[in-house]
Amino acid sequence: MKAVRLVGYEQQPQLMDVPDPTPSSPLDVVIRIGGAGVCRTDLHIIEGQWEEKSGVALPYTIGHENAGWVEAVGSAVTNVKPGDPVILHPLATCGLCRACRAGDDVHCVNSSFPGIDSDGGYAEYLRTTARSVVRLDDSLEPADVAALADAGLTAYHAVAKAARVLRPGDTAVAIGAGGLGHIGIQVFKALSPARLVVVDRSPEALELASELGADVTLRADGTQVEAIQELTQGNGAEAILDFVGEGGAVEDGVQMLRRAGNYYVIGYGGEIRVPTIDVISTEINFIGNLVGSYNDLVELMVLAAEDRVRLHTQRYALSDFQKALDDLDAGLVRGRAILVP
Amino acid sequence: MKAVRLVGYEQQPQLMDVPDPTPSSPLDVVIRIGGAGVCRTDLHIIEGQWEEKSGVALPYTIGHENAGWVEAVGSAVTNVKPGDPVILHPLATCGLCRACRAGDDVHCVNSSFPGIDSDGGYAEYLRTTARSVVRLDDSLEPADVAALADAGLTAYHAVAKAARVLRPGDTAVAIGAGGLGHIGIQVFKALSPARLVVVDRSPEALELASELGADVTLRADGTQVEAIQELTQGNGAEAILDFVGEGGAVEDGVQMLRRAGNYYVIGYGGEIRVPTIDVISTEINFIGNLVGSYNDLVELMVLAAEDRVRLHTQRYALSDFQKALDDLDAGLVRGRAILVP
Amino acid sequence: MKAVRLVGYEQQPQLMDVPDPTPSSPLDVVIRIGGAGVCRTDLHIIEGQWEEKSGVALPYTIGHENAGWVEAVGSAVTNVKPGDPVILHPLATCGLCRACRAGDDVHCVNSSFPGIDSDGGYAEYLRTTARSVVRLDDSLEPADVAALADAGLTAYHAVAKAARVLRPGDTAVAIGAGGLGHIGIQVFKALSPARLVVVDRSPEALELASELGADVTLRADGTQVEAIQELTQGNGAEAILDFVGEGGAVEDGVQMLRRAGNYYVIGYGGEIRVPTIDVISTEINFIGNLVGSYNDLVELMVLAAEDRVRLHTQRYALSDFQKALDDLDAGLVRGRAILVP
Amino acid sequence: MKAVRLVGYEQQPQLMDVPDPTPSSPLDVVIRIGGAGVCRTDLHIIEGQWEEKSGVALPYTIGHENAGWVEAVGSAVTNVKPGDPVILHPLATCGLCRACRAGDDVHCVNSSFPGIDSDGGYAEYLRTTARSVVRLDDSLEPADVAALADAGLTAYHAVAKAARVLRPGDTAVAIGAGGLGHIGIQVFKALSPARLVVVDRSPEALELASELGADVTLRADGTQVEAIQELTQGNGAEAILDFVGEGGAVEDGVQMLRRAGNYYVIGYGGEIRVPTIDVISTEINFIGNLVGSYNDLVELMVLAAEDRVRLHTQRYALSDFQKALDDLDAGLVRGRAILVP
Repeated sequence: MKAVRLVGYEQQPQLMDVPDPTPSSPLDVVIRIGGAGVCRTDLHIIEGQWEEKSGVALPYTIGHENAGWVEAVGSAVTNVKPGDPVILHPLATCGLCRACRAGDDVHCVNSSFPGIDSDGGYAEYLRTTARSVVRLDDSLEPADVAALADAGLTAYHAVAKAARVLRPGDTAVAIGAGGLGHIGIQVFKALSPARLVVVDRSPEALELASELGADVTLRADGTQVEAIQELTQGNGAEAILDFVGEGGAVEDGVQMLRRAGNYYVIGYGGEIRVPTIDVISTEINFIGNLVGSYNDLVELMVLAAEDRVRLHTQRYALSDFQKALDDLDAGLVRGRAILVP
Repeated sequence: MKAVRLVGYEQQPQLMDVPDPTPSSPLDVVIRIGGAGVCRTDLHIIEGQWEEKSGVALPYTIGHENAGWVEAVGSAVTNVKPGDPVILHPLATCGLCRACRAGDDVHCVNSSFPGIDSDGGYAEYLRTTARSVVRLDDSLEPADVAALADAGLTAYHAVAKAARVLRPGDTAVAIGAGGLGHIGIQVFKALSPARLVVVDRSPEALELASELGADVTLRADGTQVEAIQELTQGNGAEAILDFVGEGGAVEDGVQMLRRAGNYYVIGYGGEIRVPTIDVISTEINFIGNLVGSYNDLVELMVLAAEDRVRLHTQRYALSDFQKALDDLDAGLVRGRAILVP
Repeated sequence: MKAVRLVGYEQQPQLMDVPDPTPSSPLDVVIRIGGAGVCRTDLHIIEGQWEEKSGVALPYTIGHENAGWVEAVGSAVTNVKPGDPVILHPLATCGLCRACRAGDDVHCVNSSFPGIDSDGGYAEYLRTTARSVVRLDDSLEPADVAALADAGLTAYHAVAKAARVLRPGDTAVAIGAGGLGHIGIQVFKALSPARLVVVDRSPEALELASELGADVTLRADGTQVEAIQELTQGNGAEAILDFVGEGGAVEDGVQMLRRAGNYYVIGYGGEIRVPTIDVISTEINFIGNLVGSYNDLVELMVLAAEDRVRLHTQRYALSDFQKALDDLDAGLVRGRAILVP
Repeated sequence: MKAVRLVGYEQQPQLMDVPDPTPSSPLDVVIRIGGAGVCRTDLHIIEGQWEEKSGVALPYTIGHENAGWVEAVGSAVTNVKPGDPVILHPLATCGLCRACRAGDDVHCVNSSFPGIDSDGGYAEYLRTTARSVVRLDDSLEPADVAALADAGLTAYHAVAKAARVLRPGDTAVAIGAGGLGHIGIQVFKALSPARLVVVDRSPEALELASELGADVTLRADGTQVEAIQELTQGNGAEAILDFVGEGGAVEDGVQMLRRAGNYYVIGYGGEIRVPTIDVISTEINFIGNLVGSYNDLVELMVLAAEDRVRLHTQRYALSDFQKALDDLDAGLVRGRAILVP
């Protein structure tokens, strides 16, 4: 089959022929790729930023946001059958460790991460295990949802956590209406009756936020903290959903937070820096958020099938992978770039 | 190997030679049995009460409370290795269905139940899967804990659920200090700071309850409802742990329950019969309890290793299985009968 | 002022002049009634069914679903001021008992219930305490929401409890789309992304249910259990919201319930009758539901102000109270009858 | 009566005669002080550190950890009666705001804090409200428990929060076995079956920790992070209870934390400073902890009555208040200094 493989760091990946994968273990599943998201992380991998962290042996196939159809299954696979449309949870987990047994499979102590530390989805086929495949509703096109597998799942996970404790009349502030944020907004409106205020520097992002259901939008022009205080009668918001995590977002966010409120850390890059006395005197919490669990992805796909969560995508043929990477790097992709074999 | 097999219903099982089991799938684990609990359910199986329900093909090996040592493992097993002492969760679950993925593996839609619907532990060896084996602390002897695999796990599951909402100053009433109840009492004292009142008809059972840590014991002689009301200033108890579930226990229990209290149904045999107006006007809940999850069993084994939960056992050689079954039927077993190959 | 007072059981109440109430304690609040719901319970009170239970001394003023404007406040009242539009939580609670201190004020051990055990709202003014008044949004008309104070609050409370554990892809079945149910449907759609199936005997009720957002409606014609099993691939629904509680609803509901599912008992009249083995083998729960807390009412009023929950009302002058009662008794009221002084 | 009053900042307080307080409102309660804790905060108040924050008008009576007996009650008080032994929750809350109505009374938007912003307990009598008094078990001496009202309550609140999510086999690390920590250790052992590791710089503190039930003690000598990793097979602890909050505790604590673990911020002084990528890649949470709720104090007093939580105290006559303050300042008080009128 054709696959886009990284042969060396700081070199462009190459499209080459490799053997088709087959199930080698009873729980293996081979997927015919319908779409693979092109993600900024892929650029970082090529630059070598993940070399040490992933420890992957070159050459290997990149691509960690994958969806497609089941091509073949091992003898013990009961949850999908050939022909089923599926999306792949980013992690192939062991199912045996304490975290997996608690449904918290993201903290599996024995997982692999196709596209990061093993062969991924910039290819015609990919081998994973039954534990990572989520059956899609027949109404969904794999290429349309592939890019929800990672960033979308992170947004879902954090927003669902927040929604569980928010009540009608509460206020949540989403900082950032970009890649993560605009999915988070859609998920929020599907899951929570609370008021959603969206803060962003870009008027275009705020316009999109409004279209997606944000109750209030605020320009991050230096007045946003004051504006939140005004909107909440000086009390602050019950929840901050920080999809940015750098560049002043955290400082702002903490000032927007109500006593006993929850600060959901989702985006990253900067740091949390706050005196412990401020944490205890207001009794606020900082809640970390990684990608969601397998069941989170199942739930997100329900919302996608109900058309409550949509993603704008721009498709490229697999052989045009370099153009997709270049366009992404140049900021020319609207929504998410998807490679389609 | 030797195995005790049921060859026909309403006939005594027979000790016979069968081939040793071997791992036939990468997640399979073969156990050398260290002890198999002899349970009243085994008597019912022999009588044919489970014939239709289990649909098992005869002959097969009974025994569903099993512990021992790992003898051999399939190629994909990562959680145990040969020689490890283990106890077996009663269900071998699929790890792929929504319930399994949520850590609620008891509601797996695709599980098997060795000793009930496939070969069990009245034998020298048993084949199960990696998903059912819990590594024991080296200080624990498999034969000593085998009987915790089913009844003990049920008691743990229910009590742990109750303990999560009980607070210092609350009162829980355990109805029944027999097989299930006396484990439940030990678990309760390990998990909860609340007051535990134990109700039973038997003075001996109440004496044992006191030794195991019951704060108050009450004879079920017709005055128990009134006694609970007195102990709780007429408010009733925050939780009822009903280890009996028949013969007036439910009627009594409901009368002992406080407004907004939880009634944990654990034992069975009788019925819940209560007007809906009584349920809504006091806002009480009835909480069903089946056997615990894999992680529940891990936690129960932690308590066993810390000697916080103990079981009295009476050992029989595997070849004496008939005597063990007869003794159980005749009420001659103190604690639990265990077959040791 | 004018007030409709019960002077004897099985007699029609009488409109009479009584002294205007004034704040007699620092936390007292006097309300000018804007609307009082006419409820079937009022008919039962007149018939004497509540005589023993309430122990109220006659004559007294009935009416337990009340909203209006603050007329006067005691010296310690800080949450409302004269002129504020308010709805009254049905209970005036003590604020001092353990339940009140936990936010679970419905289980206050020291509450009064205006209209049931003290003077209610079929009058021009009513005296209650600061703990029962919920400030309404200025956009809301007291007479439009008064009838949400009791039945609406019960529906909100139960549905919010269910919504906290339901996830996208789950199914909830609402049994009954009448008075309680049609509010419950609106609340459900505001709070939960799960699928809502509504079951009722009446085609008109089901049509209304569809308009209010029910995802699926099913005629209760004997095929409803089977239909739910089909809709859920034979698994049953994660939640049953039983707004009926009698006449076969419970038997049906239990058969519709999934393993580990929750049965919310809301309506009443019949009984729960289920073998304990069925409760434990499927691990189902029965969850009682009384009227909601003060904060539940605050949240319901947020949904009302956002027009997510609406009630059809038919207004009567206070002096026409007898016609309102007669119309209700004769089944001539569409939606809820409201007395407006 | 006699009262110790602050007449000016940076001056020693003075013992003077002031009028006896009386109930001036129906919910008022006057307490005859049995004991008032002498706290480091009192030294800070005298130094003027709280001048701006509290805004209290001088002169006023200090003392914010109070217990005694009910002397007189207002007409609306139902939860205590004259003669009852009581401890005072530090805050006198409104009972009307949303936080109070949710049982989260610490976040009351309208509370007073006797001893900080109004007259406190360095006196013979103190006036508070019914909402702050917790009835003590008759077996408890007010002077013995007074000092649990603030620091003890904070420790209880945080530990109880942690205990709700810890399971047998989990590990919690308490950083600091001083004033807060040694109460926290006792509470932990009463509430949780998990393993407790205590870290402190002082061998004496660790010895006390062992006596109070710590499962493992570790000297904070630079090897503690490594030691925790070893104790947890390199996974880290499920919970960090940081009773210190400064001087390297946070940096250490974060390194001791397991993926998806909770860091409970209790002590304060330093800062949390952590890159957002570390928070999201391990999905850890920082949980703020202020003083507990009224019901938390009720529960802590249950543990005290059961002798599961004890405090070492050193009593001083009210007239010796200056010596108590001086001894505290000089580090000469073992346990807590208590003023007894």
